[in-house]
Amino acid sequence: MKKFLSKDFLLENDFGGLLYHEYASKMPIIDYHNHLPPVDIAENRKFNSITEAWLEGDHYKWRAMRAFGISEDYVTGKESDKDKFLKWSSVVPYTVRNPLYHWTHLELQRYFNIEELLSPDTAEKIYTESSDQLAQDSHSCLGLLEQMNVELVCTTDDPADDLVYHKQMTDRTGVKMLPTFRPDKLYAVQSDTYLQYISALSKIVGYPIKTFSDLLNAAKDRVEYFHSVGGRLSDHGLEQLYYVDYSVEKSANVFTNFLSGKAPTLQEVRLFQMTFLVELSKMYFDKGWTQQFHLGAIRNNNTAKLRELGADTGYDSIGDYDQITGLSKFLRTLEEEGKLTKTILYNLNPRDNEAFATMAGNFMDGSVAGKIQYGSGWWFLDQKDGMEKQINALSNMGILSCFVGMLTDSRSFLSFPRHEYFRRLLCNML
Amino acid sequence: MKKFLSKDFLLENDFGGLLYHEYASKMPIIDYHNHLPPVDIAENRKFNSITEAWLEGDHYKWRAMRAFGISEDYVTGKESDKDKFLKWSSVVPYTVRNPLYHWTHLELQRYFNIEELLSPDTAEKIYTESSDQLAQDSHSCLGLLEQMNVELVCTTDDPADDLVYHKQMTDRTGVKMLPTFRPDKLYAVQSDTYLQYISALSKIVGYPIKTFSDLLNAAKDRVEYFHSVGGRLSDHGLEQLYYVDYSVEKSANVFTNFLSGKAPTLQEVRLFQMTFLVELSKMYFDKGWTQQFHLGAIRNNNTAKLRELGADTGYDSIGDYDQITGLSKFLRTLEEEGKLTKTILYNLNPRDNEAFATMAGNFMDGSVAGKIQYGSGWWFLDQKDGMEKQINALSNMGILSCFVGMLTDSRSFLSFPRHEYFRRLLCNML
Amino acid sequence: MKKFLSKDFLLENDFGGLLYHEYASKMPIIDYHNHLPPVDIAENRKFNSITEAWLEGDHYKWRAMRAFGISEDYVTGKESDKDKFLKWSSVVPYTVRNPLYHWTHLELQRYFNIEELLSPDTAEKIYTESSDQLAQDSHSCLGLLEQMNVELVCTTDDPADDLVYHKQMTDRTGVKMLPTFRPDKLYAVQSDTYLQYISALSKIVGYPIKTFSDLLNAAKDRVEYFHSVGGRLSDHGLEQLYYVDYSVEKSANVFTNFLSGKAPTLQEVRLFQMTFLVELSKMYFDKGWTQQFHLGAIRNNNTAKLRELGADTGYDSIGDYDQITGLSKFLRTLEEEGKLTKTILYNLNPRDNEAFATMAGNFMDGSVAGKIQYGSGWWFLDQKDGMEKQINALSNMGILSCFVGMLTDSRSFLSFPRHEYFRRLLCNML
Repeated sequence: MKKFLSKDFLLENDFGGLLYHEYASKMPIIDYHNHLPPVDIAENRKFNSITEAWLEGDHYKWRAMRAFGISEDYVTGKESDKDKFLKWSSVVPYTVRNPLYHWTHLELQRYFNIEELLSPDTAEKIYTESSDQLAQDSHSCLGLLEQMNVELVCTTDDPADDLVYHKQMTDRTGVKMLPTFRPDKLYAVQSDTYLQYISALSKIVGYPIKTFSDLLNAAKDRVEYFHSVGGRLSDHGLEQLYYVDYSVEKSANVFTNFLSGKAPTLQEVRLFQMTFLVELSKMYFDKGWTQQFHLGAIRNNNTAKLRELGADTGYDSIGDYDQITGLSKFLRTLEEEGKLTKTILYNLNPRDNEAFATMAGNFMDGSVAGKIQYGSGWWFLDQKDGMEKQINALSNMGILSCFVGMLTDSRSFLSFPRHEYFRRLLCNML
Repeated sequence: MKKFLSKDFLLENDFGGLLYHEYASKMPIIDYHNHLPPVDIAENRKFNSITEAWLEGDHYKWRAMRAFGISEDYVTGKESDKDKFLKWSSVVPYTVRNPLYHWTHLELQRYFNIEELLSPDTAEKIYTESSDQLAQDSHSCLGLLEQMNVELVCTTDDPADDLVYHKQMTDRTGVKMLPTFRPDKLYAVQSDTYLQYISALSKIVGYPIKTFSDLLNAAKDRVEYFHSVGGRLSDHGLEQLYYVDYSVEKSANVFTNFLSGKAPTLQEVRLFQMTFLVELSKMYFDKGWTQQFHLGAIRNNNTAKLRELGADTGYDSIGDYDQITGLSKFLRTLEEEGKLTKTILYNLNPRDNEAFATMAGNFMDGSVAGKIQYGSGWWFLDQKDGMEKQINALSNMGILSCFVGMLTDSRSFLSFPRHEYFRRLLCNML
Repeated sequence: MKKFLSKDFLLENDFGGLLYHEYASKMPIIDYHNHLPPVDIAENRKFNSITEAWLEGDHYKWRAMRAFGISEDYVTGKESDKDKFLKWSSVVPYTVRNPLYHWTHLELQRYFNIEELLSPDTAEKIYTESSDQLAQDSHSCLGLLEQMNVELVCTTDDPADDLVYHKQMTDRTGVKMLPTFRPDKLYAVQSDTYLQYISALSKIVGYPIKTFSDLLNAAKDRVEYFHSVGGRLSDHGLEQLYYVDYSVEKSANVFTNFLSGKAPTLQEVRLFQMTFLVELSKMYFDKGWTQQFHLGAIRNNNTAKLRELGADTGYDSIGDYDQITGLSKFLRTLEEEGKLTKTILYNLNPRDNEAFATMAGNFMDGSVAGKIQYGSGWWFLDQKDGMEKQINALSNMGILSCFVGMLTDSRSFLSFPRHEYFRRLLCNML
């Protein structure tokens, strides 16, 4: 019987095999977008157990466990690391055809050299073996990255972040870490915690934020600061880009009203967001950055669980928002002002692949190859079908040769084999 | 030449063949959702001809005939059973690549042991042969079900139905029949016949329905009644779940206004529907039922034909409604009240597969495996492509192992081989 | 090594090969919808170079060049024909997996008998060789069509067009050319140039257009005129069909207001459009025409480029508009009035394939096979994946046997091998 995930895993033809083994597999990894905690990298954290490294914070696995009928105690709750792992092992054999089945065994093989399939029968042994390895220097956070030939990670950071861990890393040889400017909170005027956020931002820029103009200045100062620490990327997570005209003047009113305690209407929220995004994008253009937009998630669907467990705990999913007219307007507005910078567009609902891929093509200005990128399959689409559909849509509607390729978008140090996965798929498709 | 629909039909690999022949093919059929007429089962109807059994009420075949340019006289009209069958036979060879081609020949083989392909050349012979067989006890309604190893059928029944045929069947051995509570008419406040419906309902519960509170009581009484006859399922057919806050108080006003002759606005219709659905869902939760939602059909598109032939005559199709924000709100509302019961979500537009599959995952609470089901390909999607896409979306976004599997959703006693079809496909994909 | 685009290109099975080589390949081409310039056909234009024939006006290639980072000077700009071609040749090798790679080499083989792959290495030679051939009679516009066995081309023409070139062709043997009535400008009441258009129309019909009734009369006269020149088709390009009730009376007001200088509201634009379409469709019905609807493009996304280069220069893409409820209402309205003529529906967003295919099925009246057609993959979908998805959706939801098949929808005389491409694909799928 062929070994699971053998040398030619996903490679169905000789040309793909040649391409992968002779070329793609040898390339280093530039993971230009992820959610790794900078502190773990800078301080080279070691994990106490495979559970800590693998299950803590991995909402893909949490969703699978809940779907399988496992109590929250074993998911995010009070049970021990070992018991959580044993429960997870009981789910794994039933995840066949879900990407978790591939990821799980690929990660066990690549990081731990464990070739057995995870199940209740093997769980005790794998728990001990992998946790032992995690205690070694080869399996510290930096060790895990180096094993995978990672050269650069771009983390995801709030404008109010002081980037102390990034600065700590600047002199280091080996894996590099750069920040990404992710200002979702900066314009979340509808949020309960926005006032609090403005106050924190005020502290870090060192001056009061009393007007919209102050706020834009603060944003600009933080862009400059990120730039000085090596940041060249921004990232935005949005349900959709609304189709509204932007207006600095009206947004200034919305902000003044907000500060005086008046909650914005839905229309005002949209106006404020559009205006802020346009102003930020111009700043990115001026600095020569690349901006990223992750569009289409519907978040915190389970309000009861949001209250109990907080955000990003596995209750987000794929929305069916209108994306295209708003996106068109946003890009067109920037293009008209001569301030459209390099852009990567990621969509979460695969039904929109073709529309996104063609929209990107409307704003290629001949200045640089692949100026507007249709980004890689993301989140729920970060699996074989999702990757193939993205690659096919991009191939049919655009120029695959200009594609920037894969990223992990992950919170886990153990998820880098998905670069291997992507490379195998891509080589196989060519 | 290989026999059409041979032993290994749809089975492209050895493992799939093993799985199907050794396991799947031997399992009984639990058809947990269909539209079979209870009277036909309880009274063990015999069909006078293959036309009666096969073409009467089958809007899939009607649509194919109309598309082929055949006059309505031969579809639902005045022509004889035999002439209708002959016309249908002339269309069959041209249905290649449509699921009808597979269904037709699978049904002829499985029920009648007829292996010829249906065409004008074979039509006379097949008409006689199959109609003769239908005259025998082996081919009565119960006979047809038993041939297919059906253990249970769940029919689809209106709350005002007295379920007399279901009660008639309770003592029987062999095939069992249980009702499903399908209350679409119960909250169709926009319908021309709603007043009439309320009056019929009032009669069956035995008290006047003068207020919204009376109406909810009546609903509850009927849920209890269905439960007493063995019903454990409900089903709802909706274009979409609207994104509105529910309100018992406001809905009570809408109902009072309705009774006093004032037609509801569109916004009121949506509010009324949302409120009613929430209230019903709580009742289902209290009884431990499973609720089903069939979302996304656009019905009665051809108004001229609706007037001429009535509803469900082949003029319905796939809508492109927004589904996700309303669905999220509905499920979230019930979860917040601690009253979200087991649920199956079916979508009709395949573009929404991934969004539905991920939405289901937001409301798994660890209490039971697969609590929120992403249901099988439905209606127009009840064919190879549609089934495969549903299985793939579920596999990628959820846990296929927890899937409840196939149902016929059919009005025909001859459509049970689609369980075989589904099983072959599923075995082949594993 | 197998020759690129060999005899069995796209044919993966023996039956498909037989079907293609023995039957499909021998059929003439009826190109029932394209955008060829009538003047070029009537006057049998010769091209001065391959650039003129191949790159002038081909926004597919333009988009690829821009995406590859090539300056507009080489795309639509001031550079020489030869330099433009050389630049294009540098892009071609990087278009692998884009349909352009197939189209490019298929066209070089079929029209010029050039079997080399186009790249900077071969560009000079191919430029000379193909341009030389274009100077010969065999490669004039009519020559190119005859080479491809084209019997009929249906061009796309404005109602105000005098069709002089079509009339010039009437006595000719060989390739025939008929006009298609494309009245988008006729009801573009929101357009800056609408007044101008009305005035031009007035001139051609020979009477003043002062009222909506005059306008409808003018439309009718032009339909009659197109009919007299052999036109039997109309075509409409729309983002979507809006879901509004039509009203001649209200539209008359909108028109009167427009003439008196009052710009219509968005709601009025939609009403006007719906009304006009209904009225036109009734005229088509009365003449026995077939109407076509191309739905779903989002045009002129890049306003800056629209100002610089004009419309149809490669800045259009796939929209994500709601299509189905409006389309249903439109068809239903005509059916109710007994005036629904033969119709072809084309959608641009592939996510809507299944909904369109089923909607077509609601208006088959048995009068003629395939009365309402779900049309072939269009524009961005006019490639392998797009064609396959359209064929599969049609097969699953309708009757493929009644399909009218392929068209080029092209502005280029060199794009007729896509009929071959389509035929190969179709034969392969059967």
